Amino acid sequence: MTDGHYSFSLTTFSPTGKLAQIEYALNRVSSSSPALGIRAKNGVILATEKKTPNELIEKNSIYKIQHITDHIGMVYAGMPGDFRVLLKKARKEAMIYSLQYGNEILVKELVKEIAAVVQEFTQSGGVRPFGLSLLICGTDIYGYHLYQIDPSGCYFNWLATCIGKDYQNNLSFLEKRYSKDIETEDAIHTAILTLKESYEGVMNEHNIEIGVAYNNKPFKILTPSEIKDYLIELE
Amino acid sequence: MTDGHYSFSLTTFSPTGKLAQIEYALNRVSSSSPALGIRAKNGVILATEKKTPNELIEKNSIYKIQHITDHIGMVYAGMPGDFRVLLKKARKEAMIYSLQYGNEILVKELVKEIAAVVQEFTQSGGVRPFGLSLLICGTDIYGYHLYQIDPSGCYFNWLATCIGKDYQNNLSFLEKRYSKDIETEDAIHTAILTLKESYEGVMNEHNIEIGVAYNNKPFKILTPSEIKDYLIELE
Amino acid sequence: MTDGHYSFSLTTFSPTGKLAQIEYALNRVSSSSPALGIRAKNGVILATEKKTPNELIEKNSIYKIQHITDHIGMVYAGMPGDFRVLLKKARKEAMIYSLQYGNEILVKELVKEIAAVVQEFTQSGGVRPFGLSLLICGTDIYGYHLYQIDPSGCYFNWLATCIGKDYQNNLSFLEKRYSKDIETEDAIHTAILTLKESYEGVMNEHNIEIGVAYNNKPFKILTPSEIKDYLIELE
Amino acid sequence: MTDGHYSFSLTTFSPTGKLAQIEYALNRVSSSSPALGIRAKNGVILATEKKTPNELIEKNSIYKIQHITDHIGMVYAGMPGDFRVLLKKARKEAMIYSLQYGNEILVKELVKEIAAVVQEFTQSGGVRPFGLSLLICGTDIYGYHLYQIDPSGCYFNWLATCIGKDYQNNLSFLEKRYSKDIETEDAIHTAILTLKESYEGVMNEHNIEIGVAYNNKPFKILTPSEIKDYLIELE
Amino acid sequence: MTDGHYSFSLTTFSPTGKLAQIEYALNRVSSSSPALGIRAKNGVILATEKKTPNELIEKNSIYKIQHITDHIGMVYAGMPGDFRVLLKKARKEAMIYSLQYGNEILVKELVKEIAAVVQEFTQSGGVRPFGLSLLICGTDIYGYHLYQIDPSGCYFNWLATCIGKDYQNNLSFLEKRYSKDIETEDAIHTAILTLKESYEGVMNEHNIEIGVAYNNKPFKILTPSEIKDYLIELE
Amino acid sequence: MTDGHYSFSLTTFSPTGKLAQIEYALNRVSSSSPALGIRAKNGVILATEKKTPNELIEKNSIYKIQHITDHIGMVYAGMPGDFRVLLKKARKEAMIYSLQYGNEILVKELVKEIAAVVQEFTQSGGVRPFGLSLLICGTDIYGYHLYQIDPSGCYFNWLATCIGKDYQNNLSFLEKRYSKDIETEDAIHTAILTLKESYEGVMNEHNIEIGVAYNNKPFKILTPSEIKDYLIELE
Amino acid sequence: MTDGHYSFSLTTFSPTGKLAQIEYALNRVSSSSPALGIRAKNGVILATEKKTPNELIEKNSIYKIQHITDHIGMVYAGMPGDFRVLLKKARKEAMIYSLQYGNEILVKELVKEIAAVVQEFTQSGGVRPFGLSLLICGTDIYGYHLYQIDPSGCYFNWLATCIGKDYQNNLSFLEKRYSKDIETEDAIHTAILTLKESYEGVMNEHNIEIGVAYNNKPFKILTPSEIKDYLIELE
Repeated sequence: MTDGHYSFSLTTFSPTGKLAQIEYALNRVSSSSPALGIRAKNGVILATEKKTPNELIEKNSIYKIQHITDHIGMVYAGMPGDFRVLLKKARKEAMIYSLQYGNEILVKELVKEIAAVVQEFTQSGGVRPFGLSLLICGTDIYGYHLYQIDPSGCYFNWLATCIGKDYQNNLSFLEKRYSKDIETEDAIHTAILTLKESYEGVMNEHNIEIGVAYNNKPFKILTPSEIKDYLIELE
Repeated sequence: MTDGHYSFSLTTFSPTGKLAQIEYALNRVSSSSPALGIRAKNGVILATEKKTPNELIEKNSIYKIQHITDHIGMVYAGMPGDFRVLLKKARKEAMIYSLQYGNEILVKELVKEIAAVVQEFTQSGGVRPFGLSLLICGTDIYGYHLYQIDPSGCYFNWLATCIGKDYQNNLSFLEKRYSKDIETEDAIHTAILTLKESYEGVMNEHNIEIGVAYNNKPFKILTPSEIKDYLIELE
Repeated sequence: MTDGHYSFSLTTFSPTGKLAQIEYALNRVSSSSPALGIRAKNGVILATEKKTPNELIEKNSIYKIQHITDHIGMVYAGMPGDFRVLLKKARKEAMIYSLQYGNEILVKELVKEIAAVVQEFTQSGGVRPFGLSLLICGTDIYGYHLYQIDPSGCYFNWLATCIGKDYQNNLSFLEKRYSKDIETEDAIHTAILTLKESYEGVMNEHNIEIGVAYNNKPFKILTPSEIKDYLIELE
Repeated sequence: MTDGHYSFSLTTFSPTGKLAQIEYALNRVSSSSPALGIRAKNGVILATEKKTPNELIEKNSIYKIQHITDHIGMVYAGMPGDFRVLLKKARKEAMIYSLQYGNEILVKELVKEIAAVVQEFTQSGGVRPFGLSLLICGTDIYGYHLYQIDPSGCYFNWLATCIGKDYQNNLSFLEKRYSKDIETEDAIHTAILTLKESYEGVMNEHNIEIGVAYNNKPFKILTPSEIKDYLIELE
Repeated sequence: MTDGHYSFSLTTFSPTGKLAQIEYALNRVSSSSPALGIRAKNGVILATEKKTPNELIEKNSIYKIQHITDHIGMVYAGMPGDFRVLLKKARKEAMIYSLQYGNEILVKELVKEIAAVVQEFTQSGGVRPFGLSLLICGTDIYGYHLYQIDPSGCYFNWLATCIGKDYQNNLSFLEKRYSKDIETEDAIHTAILTLKESYEGVMNEHNIEIGVAYNNKPFKILTPSEIKDYLIELE
Repeated sequence: MTDGHYSFSLTTFSPTGKLAQIEYALNRVSSSSPALGIRAKNGVILATEKKTPNELIEKNSIYKIQHITDHIGMVYAGMPGDFRVLLKKARKEAMIYSLQYGNEILVKELVKEIAAVVQEFTQSGGVRPFGLSLLICGTDIYGYHLYQIDPSGCYFNWLATCIGKDYQNNLSFLEKRYSKDIETEDAIHTAILTLKESYEGVMNEHNIEIGVAYNNKPFKILTPSEIKDYLIELE
Repeated sequence: MTDGHYSFSLTTFSPTGKLAQIEYALNRVSSSSPALGIRAKNGVILATEKKTPNELIEKNSIYKIQHITDHIGMVYAGMPGDFRVLLKKARKEAMIYSLQYGNEILVKELVKEIAAVVQEFTQSGGVRPFGLSLLICGTDIYGYHLYQIDPSGCYFNWLATCIGKDYQNNLSFLEKRYSKDIETEDAIHTAILTLKESYEGVMNEHNIEIGVAYNNKPFKILTPSEIKDYLIELE
């Protein structure tokens, strides 16, 4: 019941110095479908499991991986409604930047802007933290980047990482297979294998999503048939 | 009693990362009259049970299925008062869009706008989530669409789905009978049979509603006599 | 005590998806003096028991049935102070409409406007729901109408209905006697008989009120002597 | 303790549909010094017991009966501080009316305005209901009037009534003696006798107040010596 | 513990119709140093015990009796910080009045203004009642006046009264000695004797204060040496 | 636990009429490093113990005694962060005064302004009282002054006083040694001896501070070497 | 559970005069990665342990030590999201100062500005204190400075100090080795040795950060290879 008391106000520390609402939001994240990102030598990718509640869902209608700009993509683990709020903010921010400065926003700049919004929701009254973690990847003049933002508003720059359900196991799996010289193609293979580790049921081109930015081309979300090709390669 | 504590603030996560108010709102939905939607090859339909409290109600006065625009219809399971709030917002949004861009709003655009409103009511203080799920169907230049919006602000694009009481059984029933090549006429038959599965008492043209958009014609709500014809066909 | 917790915030669902404050407001309604409405072939009537605290009350001073416009009347079961708030809003709304469009507001339009106000008081912080149900009847170019609005903001279009104390018994009584071809005169008789069913003590022209709109004439509240005539007819 | 919970928020119904704060405010009223009003054939009067804490109080300093306009008087049972707030509002309202329309406000109009203020304090957050009941009497072109306003914002038009301590006994007493043909002089006698019923100690011209409007003359508060004359007559 | 619940919100009645915060504020008053006032035939006085925490306090620095205008003085029992807030408001109010109307504010007008402020703090959210009672005395064209204002915003016009610790005993003492023909000089003697009744330790010119308005002269606070003379007379 | 309830709202009286938050703030003061002030014949001084957390602190960096104006100094016992808020306000107030009236603010005027701010934080919602007591000393055309302001917003004018830890013992010590004819030099000696009484460990020029205004010279904070000289004199 | 009650409102003292939220925030600080600062004869340094969650993190992406201006650096122990909020504020403040006055902000001025922000978050409603302690170092015309700011808004000027995990042991370690004549190079050695004391695992150039301002050169964050050189020197 003490927990109930501390979580009462969003902006209250527990005696051990934790903000219970952020912990709880993280619990939400780690019970949601897994997503991951890998920065390869010549590109960066996002991949995510995509839960299809049942067969009647329109398979091509849900995109958990989304463009923020032509060169930057984003995926999440957590609450879809919250994701769209941040997606909208992120796109607006990127557009304002590009109108103001005449060139695309740097990945890190964008990440800082989104993280600041997420942090603010942990320190104000009348709101709750966002119930998700984000992976943001993209390219800019400084190369390829992969960032994670947590409900606390922290962000991290990763070579490769996982969020969502089983993220610890998935991360161990990734660590074993990752090398800095990994090619984008291999990164996609590794991503699929990682998701497969914890996947319950049969994985196919409709229940995972992959996004990729490489060889200085814009960020691109793979079509089901492209994903199918990768799945076949791995059989 | 702990539940009571977590539900105190609308915007507070429980330790497992759930937003209790959304769960409770979903409970409201799943204890309300069922509704369903089916996307057929050449059309899309909505159908719903319509509770008539007793014989003295004006039978033609309650329309749970409503037009948003000429080509888009909406039905709900949950609180009627909340429905009207969202209906009003949806119509206004659609009108603004059409005045601004000179053509009718895309179904998906409209769904996103309504879902954003619904999400906002899960993250602000001083309000409660909406106590309903929505089914929105319609046609636009991209074809026929069927969407669901939940109290969390999530939306899904379905081939066919059910909300409200017995939605799980109804969904299983639908899954068994659904095929992608279903004709609109068959979809209406399937819809009626699905509603009949869980209907208590005698179903007639006054206690169900059906709306349909097909063959590029506007979304149309069937008259009781049209429904009666379908009921007779199925006997 | 759990109930106490859920009712704390006006805008909080209980685990079963109910809004306790609305349930409690309905309890208020169903412990208040009964009122009823009947739509006849050529008219529509309202009737209500009028509690007179004792003999010293000015008998002609309390009118529970009130005009909104010339052609629309309203009665309530519940809190008189709340009634006056909605009466004022309804009259203003009707006046604005008629100034803007040059003709009287449709009964249904007016009902929707009032219901929207009532709904808003169930979803905002810092206020409570209205402690009453309303019956609104009237005529417009579409004929005679009888509507009910509940504390949740729901409205219903009835042929005949009852609110307040013993409304279930009264409704059964009405159902048995009602026919669609009922004349306005008969409707008044039926209304009086229905009220008599649950009336404690001796009913007279001072402790009931009757309002009627028929034969395209404005809505009119009967005088005590007119009511007395009806009472005599029924003896 | 449950009561404590329901009374927490001013705007919360208890499960039985009561607003506890209004009930409690009424308890305040019925433990305060009694007041009464009587409408006679040719006038209307107010009378009240006036508690003098002890002998050292300035006897002519406390007037519980107050003028709102020349022709309208008001008395209360309950909290004196709250009374002055409403007195100020009432006088202002009356003045605005008379400036706007060029003639004095009707008694009923004024009563409705005050009652609306009182009602608002039962439905808003951050305030409490007024801790008093009011009797308002006066004359206008429609004759003599006697109104009561309760903490709920309800008002009643009376021939004769009592508020405050022992109001039920006093009301029975009044009922027995009241007739519609009562002369103003007799009404004053009846008022004094009614107050005497429940008066503890010796009543004199300093511990009761009487106000009267009759024969189309303005509302007038009797002087102690005038009251003394009435007391002598009654010995 | 129930008390704790009722006192939670400033603006909440207890079931018996009391406002607990006002009761508690009164408890504060009656545990504070006593003060008193006496209206004599040709003047009016205030007197108060003045607690000096110890010998190191600057004896001439604390004045519990203060001027509001030249002719009006004020003393309090309760919280000194709250007193200064009201003193500032009172002086401002008096100044505004005198600038607006060209003559000094009437004592009663001033009392009503202060009492209205005090009342407001009992009916609004986010504030607490004032933790003091006030005695205000002064002269105007209507003579000499002595008023008391309580934390509820009530005011009383007294011939003589006491507030603060032992006020009941002090009042009995005063009652016995008071007569309407008392001279101002005698009133000062009576005041000192009254304070002496409950004084713990040795009373001297530094631990009581006396203010006086008489013979149409402005309100004057006696110097310690003037007080000493009175003390000597009484030995 | 009842205490917890009363302290819940900053602005709520306990049943005995106390404001718990002020009591608690005073507890904070009396557990903080002691400070004292002495008004001498020809000057006034402040002195305080200055806790140095350890040897690595920059010894000349912490000044608990601060100038408000050239002639007025201030020291505190309690929370340093709160002190700086009031210091800033005090300096601003003094500057505004001096710009407006062309001469330096009187000590008492300044004290009243600060005390009003401190009081306001005891009667408003959403804030807490200041967690400190202040000593303010200085000179103006009326001589030398020493004031204390408490968390309640009370202020006192002292010949000599102590705040903070052991303030009662320190005050007894001061009382024994104080005389009105004390020279400023002696006052400094007395101050050091008083602080020494309760000082744990070895007192040196770095762990006490002394400020002095005398012989019509501005208020001056002694340098460590000046303090050292005094300490040597006292050995 | 009492703790829960006191922490409820951010701005509420516990009975012992503590602000629980500040205590809890300090607990957060002392469970976070350690950081330290040392002021040398000719410079000032910051050093911190930098937790790398695992091998896949981009090693050069996290900088816990940050520039505020060219000559002022800042590091923290606590919540990274909160740090960025204050970093942004600090940079803005410094920029405004430099635009307004034409020269760089003094270290102490900047520290006061940040501390005021931090204090404000301990005295307002609807927010929580910042969950971090800061070390700010830099040079200005007055030399080299090292400041600490705590969640309470207190700041200290240090010769050398530690924050975060094991800060007490680290501080003892520092105290033993510190001398006022320490050269900047030695300070860096001492900093590394201090961090090593409590470091779990193998320290390398990627898991610590060092920033330094010396010989009147701007504040500079060492590159991993520069840190590596220092680590080799110390082996």
